[in-house]
Amino acid sequence: MTTQWVYNFGKDKNEGDASMRNLLGGKGSNLAEMAGLGLPVPPGFTITTEVCTAYYDNDKNYPDELAAQVEAALEQIESSMSAKFGDSENPLLVSVRSGARVSMPGMMDTVLNLGLNDATVEGLAKKSGDERFAWDSYRRFIQMYGDVVLGVDHHDFEDVIDTFKRNNDLRQDTDISADGWKEIVADYKTLVERETGKPFPDDAREQLWGAVNAVFDSWNVPRAVTYRRIHEISDKWGTAVNVQSMVFGNMGDDCATGVCFTRDPSTGDNYFYGEYLINAQGEDVVAGIRTPQSLTIKGREMEGSDLPSMEESMPAVFKQLDDVRHKLEKHYRDVQDLEFTVQKGQLFMLQTRAGKRTAKAALKIAVDMEKEGLITKDEALLRIEPQSLDQLLHPTLDPNAKKDILSKGLPASPGAASGKIVFTSDKAEEMAQAGEKVMLCRQETSPEDISGMHAAQGILTSRGGMTSHAAVVARGMGKPCVAGAGELHIDGKAKLIRVKGRELKEGDILTIDGATGEVMAGAVDTIKPELSGDFGTLMAWADKRRRMKVRANAETALDSKTARDFGAEGIGLCRTEHMFFEPTRIQNVREMIFATSEDKRRAALEKLLPEQRKDFAELFDIMSGLPVTVRLLDPPLHEFLPHGEEDTAQFAKAAGFSASDVEKRLNDLHESNPMLGHRGCRLGISFPEIYEMQARAIFEGALEASAKNNEAVVPEIMIPLVGTRKELEILRAKVEDIAKDVFAEKGKGLEYMVGTMIELPRAALTADEIAQSADFFSFGTNDLTQTTLGMSRDDAGNFLPEYIGQGIYERDPFASLDVDGVGQLVDIAQNKGRSVNADIKLGICGEHGGDPSSIAFCESVGLHYVSCSPYRVPIARLAAAQATIKAEEAPGKSEAAKKAA
Amino acid sequence: MTTQWVYNFGKDKNEGDASMRNLLGGKGSNLAEMAGLGLPVPPGFTITTEVCTAYYDNDKNYPDELAAQVEAALEQIESSMSAKFGDSENPLLVSVRSGARVSMPGMMDTVLNLGLNDATVEGLAKKSGDERFAWDSYRRFIQMYGDVVLGVDHHDFEDVIDTFKRNNDLRQDTDISADGWKEIVADYKTLVERETGKPFPDDAREQLWGAVNAVFDSWNVPRAVTYRRIHEISDKWGTAVNVQSMVFGNMGDDCATGVCFTRDPSTGDNYFYGEYLINAQGEDVVAGIRTPQSLTIKGREMEGSDLPSMEESMPAVFKQLDDVRHKLEKHYRDVQDLEFTVQKGQLFMLQTRAGKRTAKAALKIAVDMEKEGLITKDEALLRIEPQSLDQLLHPTLDPNAKKDILSKGLPASPGAASGKIVFTSDKAEEMAQAGEKVMLCRQETSPEDISGMHAAQGILTSRGGMTSHAAVVARGMGKPCVAGAGELHIDGKAKLIRVKGRELKEGDILTIDGATGEVMAGAVDTIKPELSGDFGTLMAWADKRRRMKVRANAETALDSKTARDFGAEGIGLCRTEHMFFEPTRIQNVREMIFATSEDKRRAALEKLLPEQRKDFAELFDIMSGLPVTVRLLDPPLHEFLPHGEEDTAQFAKAAGFSASDVEKRLNDLHESNPMLGHRGCRLGISFPEIYEMQARAIFEGALEASAKNNEAVVPEIMIPLVGTRKELEILRAKVEDIAKDVFAEKGKGLEYMVGTMIELPRAALTADEIAQSADFFSFGTNDLTQTTLGMSRDDAGNFLPEYIGQGIYERDPFASLDVDGVGQLVDIAQNKGRSVNADIKLGICGEHGGDPSSIAFCESVGLHYVSCSPYRVPIARLAAAQATIKAEEAPGKSEAAKKAA
Repeated sequence: MTTQWVYNFGKDKNEGDASMRNLLGGKGSNLAEMAGLGLPVPPGFTITTEVCTAYYDNDKNYPDELAAQVEAALEQIESSMSAKFGDSENPLLVSVRSGARVSMPGMMDTVLNLGLNDATVEGLAKKSGDERFAWDSYRRFIQMYGDVVLGVDHHDFEDVIDTFKRNNDLRQDTDISADGWKEIVADYKTLVERETGKPFPDDAREQLWGAVNAVFDSWNVPRAVTYRRIHEISDKWGTAVNVQSMVFGNMGDDCATGVCFTRDPSTGDNYFYGEYLINAQGEDVVAGIRTPQSLTIKGREMEGSDLPSMEESMPAVFKQLDDVRHKLEKHYRDVQDLEFTVQKGQLFMLQTRAGKRTAKAALKIAVDMEKEGLITKDEALLRIEPQSLDQLLHPTLDPNAKKDILSKGLPASPGAASGKIVFTSDKAEEMAQAGEKVMLCRQETSPEDISGMHAAQGILTSRGGMTSHAAVVARGMGKPCVAGAGELHIDGKAKLIRVKGRELKEGDILTIDGATGEVMAGAVDTIKPELSGDFGTLMAWADKRRRMKVRANAETALDSKTARDFGAEGIGLCRTEHMFFEPTRIQNVREMIFATSEDKRRAALEKLLPEQRKDFAELFDIMSGLPVTVRLLDPPLHEFLPHGEEDTAQFAKAAGFSASDVEKRLNDLHESNPMLGHRGCRLGISFPEIYEMQARAIFEGALEASAKNNEAVVPEIMIPLVGTRKELEILRAKVEDIAKDVFAEKGKGLEYMVGTMIELPRAALTADEIAQSADFFSFGTNDLTQTTLGMSRDDAGNFLPEYIGQGIYERDPFASLDVDGVGQLVDIAQNKGRSVNADIKLGICGEHGGDPSSIAFCESVGLHYVSCSPYRVPIARLAAAQATIKAEEAPGKSEAAKKAA
Repeated sequence: MTTQWVYNFGKDKNEGDASMRNLLGGKGSNLAEMAGLGLPVPPGFTITTEVCTAYYDNDKNYPDELAAQVEAALEQIESSMSAKFGDSENPLLVSVRSGARVSMPGMMDTVLNLGLNDATVEGLAKKSGDERFAWDSYRRFIQMYGDVVLGVDHHDFEDVIDTFKRNNDLRQDTDISADGWKEIVADYKTLVERETGKPFPDDAREQLWGAVNAVFDSWNVPRAVTYRRIHEISDKWGTAVNVQSMVFGNMGDDCATGVCFTRDPSTGDNYFYGEYLINAQGEDVVAGIRTPQSLTIKGREMEGSDLPSMEESMPAVFKQLDDVRHKLEKHYRDVQDLEFTVQKGQLFMLQTRAGKRTAKAALKIAVDMEKEGLITKDEALLRIEPQSLDQLLHPTLDPNAKKDILSKGLPASPGAASGKIVFTSDKAEEMAQAGEKVMLCRQETSPEDISGMHAAQGILTSRGGMTSHAAVVARGMGKPCVAGAGELHIDGKAKLIRVKGRELKEGDILTIDGATGEVMAGAVDTIKPELSGDFGTLMAWADKRRRMKVRANAETALDSKTARDFGAEGIGLCRTEHMFFEPTRIQNVREMIFATSEDKRRAALEKLLPEQRKDFAELFDIMSGLPVTVRLLDPPLHEFLPHGEEDTAQFAKAAGFSASDVEKRLNDLHESNPMLGHRGCRLGISFPEIYEMQARAIFEGALEASAKNNEAVVPEIMIPLVGTRKELEILRAKVEDIAKDVFAEKGKGLEYMVGTMIELPRAALTADEIAQSADFFSFGTNDLTQTTLGMSRDDAGNFLPEYIGQGIYERDPFASLDVDGVGQLVDIAQNKGRSVNADIKLGICGEHGGDPSSIAFCESVGLHYVSCSPYRVPIARLAAAQATIKAEEAPGKSEAAKKAA
């Protein structure tokens, strides 16, 4: 059997429908669907996406049968329209449009009026009774075809018109007569021949194939290729080509063209939203020469416009269009984005597709449609892009504001903010206390900058990736952050930022958009977030639906409260070291590190104990009734040491050390690769007294909070960087000893768990050993990504953009879990872990815990919870619900989830 | 059925044999074996190792049946010896000795004369007709028992004797009469009661059980536990206890005691080697109060001694002993270490075991025994510890020389050397050129120190582990190196080494032993290595037997020649970056790095090309006919940058850069974790022109060498640090393009391969993808260990000793492959790799390639070759042969090896 490469649509012969999107593309399949519903669709045909694939597989040759099938389809249109393609008396004109499976900018868009030449233009003039319209259509065709098919710069065409108007002393295009357009057509042809070396194609079929080739060729232009890579669209999908008989919105005042949405795409309100222009072709709406008019009276009134709405000017056709609106929304069960043309009072539908909408609108539409009974709760949940909730939680830039963009970094933490440039944490605090809004700008941040980050409106760094310190902490705080803006030379010493020849100094105002990564000079207006009741409704549905719990990564009281307000069901990662940096404590921490004997170290730790206990008591109080995972000290000790001469001297003096002692110790603690150094449980093995102090603070704090609330927390004590079962065994025993001591001293006990982070490949590979000594695993996918890929997140900025550019990694593996590599280890670990310990509790606490596609992976391997920064909790709740729904839709895929259930 | 916990040995009832070593321990099973052979073994019994296990499993309680079984076994001895345990008329005396499966220092050794008390001593006096002998035996018993069973300090006993001699004006023990010993016995008892709070046990059975308990308890003393951990002896094995009737070598001049070897354990020469003492108990030989005499006339003559040999003084007994010697060596088919006692002219055998021997002796004995038909070639091969060959290849310290040991570091590269302390590479070269022997002492070395390391006799560092730069390079050069000697404070600025309060300055002489890690002040005599014909014989057998090929890691002409001389069958790892550090090139390399555009970079590379081509041509010439794996540039670029102000200024001037340009670039290239940074193939992706230059140099060099030798090399071009198939695809295509270009230019081609190092967990996990684009995998287990364990080899020195001390890792995972973790990834990778590419060539080029137990692992997963530093090639050849033999002995274990065959 011969392959069918061409499918007709229209009322007389309609071969496709909406289910054939992969074959016919989005546009083609929806045109057929509309025709099938009996809506007025100008007849046409679709050349399938398979032709595109065949074209590229065969060195840009078409399948043998294609030409004949196109001819047959063309004949069908001719018969429906009672006109003939290329006929000088009664010419059929067509449009040619691309149409891939998903909408894709960059490809050839549209050629209208195809089929016109010096002979057929006369036929069109006669048929329409309007010579000026015919020649205007002809010149529009040459201009569009010349631009998108033949590659002649569209400015050159505009120059021809401008010259003509100047020479003839005319002001507007509407002043040009039929003869004027004739003259311009001649000039256009001269222009095309000069630019391309060939005369403009006269033959209608040559024109048609030229346009079809151009569509297929545009599939592989760089912009389209880039777009596909970013959006994970396969190169193999290909595009379809739609050839459709022309209808004209510009044949007089009983003609019009317009675009509309079945609901307001900006607010989600359920009214008919759209614009139209009388006596115009589609491109006129886009070109912005004439101001489009509102479709409805309501719309006109809202805009305060005097121009008549279509509801008023063409009431009958409007009624017809409004019927189409209801029919299509009910049929597609979603907001539709429509294009239509009215030709001599007759309505034609040219496109329908799902309408793009703002996050706010998406939320309202989903909740409304569920209430209207149009969609189910599951469908409503699946309609919202989880990431888009960020727009509802953080300030965003006013889309109408002017932006002086300096550079672009990584969109590290969402939200937009402006502030005066400061280069140090101290300065940030000082100015913030004086009531100034500041923007903390640093090469990279370290734990010492926490207070400055708190004080600042936003954080900008020139180094580091999506999981750099600045990015992680900013997300935790819900503050905007642009990280790794490498074009910026941030010179803290000179208090200058240099970028592309410009210089900004301390005190200058800067704006960042953490959702796009844009860095702008000056202040840019922002819009405050607001949470509607719809948000609460949808979140409640999500909570009912999802299998996985959602926890937050938090250690401060503020973050924990935020997390609980956002619906966190516990803490998945409390990084105790963040508590060590408070100015009142850091001296004690440093003295502990400098202690030359266990006794002295214990003495310094003794001073830290009450502070840590207070921290935990407060945290457990806030999280009362929920589990809290506390990670024991993790970073290498040198992170806590003084930096710079002044700081060092100050510390040495306060602690009573000589400068050379301090220098020697600093030197001893220096590491070549601190990420792989003396940190995590290795510290616990070397200096067990540190972990003992922390365990004591946890148990004492937990008992204190439990007594206060009469409701217990369940501390889950997490040993970091475990690579062998033995490490966990040794340290677990120490924690259990402390628990026994504390419980005996206080005369009461509580439930607790001891587990480990899985963040080293060796831990994942030997999880069947480690799980025998662990009550839980928490996948620390930040470090697991670093070790599995051998890639430092702090240094990857030098090559990762290139890597993503060349498609070596599809997405930043620190932002979205590398399923093939890191994911494989997570899967190995959960399988091996469960094989020896069926009840082991499994969660993820890396940054991936807040990334929807990573959350879907976590569902597929049956984790019990995900944990993410507080502001991502709503995103994770929705993403987890979607993951549950999708897993049920694809049964069998989630064996692990069944085990977890 | 009741478990048999006790086994008799001796001519009347002999229940064991040598095959029961696990149950009866080494000593017990060999005593039974000797008795079974009809040799004169004093009767006794063995309490099995299972009793030890039961003892610990049951809270230090013995199995119920034990007491009765011991009684029965005791009765058997009583009957054989016609004497009665604890009987005052005719007392049976026994010795009690420990005896584990393998010999293990730290445990309780021996109690002799057990059964003596105030009553039985009179019986012994009567029976022996020698009262002095009886009381001397009694006091010896109290002293031994008091020391090893009751824990009384043996010095306290000696003090009693000294006081007695002083009070009675006696000079030697032999001057003490029977009455004197009686008095001492009384004082001994007083001492014991004072020290232990209890009287010395009088009852023979109480004495016996006390000794048995002491043996079992000594299984878990710290020293024994440590020994087991180091030697990978399971805690579960337990020790046996041997109770044996006493025979006396100290009852007169017709008595003697001695130890002997069936061949010379130092040279391997086939003559009867040993010492004896007339009228003495075993401990006298050890105590060193009397000088032992040689066993044979030949021995006496070799030593130039006047003291009569046993061959002369007791010819009949000697003849009998010599018969035993031949009988046992033939029976055990190995050199035996024997203990004997002669009591009143009658020979008794007290022990036989395999004799410890030097590397040289082991080699000679193995080859000799094969010639004698005593053992097979396979057995000969298995008799040699591969590591021990190091002693034959490197200078060793004279064992008789005095050593002033300052500290101990890691035994990083074998061999011993002395030299004057220098702190910089430049100084090392300068002094070496002036004819001085120097010792390069640094905190750590970097590639810039190569020339200084070449100039030095040895290298000493205070930082870094077994695979630190210093260690790896020194092994490659065959130079002694002690690394990570953390107690030493090496202060290059002050030109001082401080250690334990002592100071050494530049020019002071230092000696290091790279086989033990010892660092000594002053010069210590060394012994030069010599290779005998036996070495060649054994190596030839090994080469015939092994399945895996052995290659070397080398890049210089010198190293490559050494490697080929040592039998390397190709280069497994040529690290091209080592070639970049030569003074003539480093300027060009730096200019390449500083180039601000591709053009400038290409210009700098153009200057490097002829140098690299020369390198490769030379290397390929030396390795003519063999495969050579060349790794393209791997380390992060900042390794090549100038260090220190002077160097930086010099470079900037020569290259025409401003100081601030240089500083900015240095800053840009700084990395937090260079190990996980912009290196390996990431450089190739970012700067393809570097790899293109290297590929060109390789192909041009290979064609040049092939033309010269009329024998081709097969260059195997290795892309480092691959984590995804795509990286390899992109870079492979570039290499292939260069190959095409070069072959076209030169008008001839050659065979080559393109493959990758597997050194990232992700690469191993996705090996089924990567293998589709790779001709070979070389496991880079140094980096794979770093990433899998999340452990920087440069920083691990801070905690790894503690880790090994606590048994978290059995051995340094950088020296011996971590089979459970890293090995699992190697196995996953070879399986996945072969699943898509059955012919893929697999090798290992990490430091583990020279470690025998790692080599055994490589055999088990079917690698095709191992590659190691040149001086380890012989070790690897032998280890590979042993691995093949052992794999055949344990069939089914090595499925992978079958695939590889």
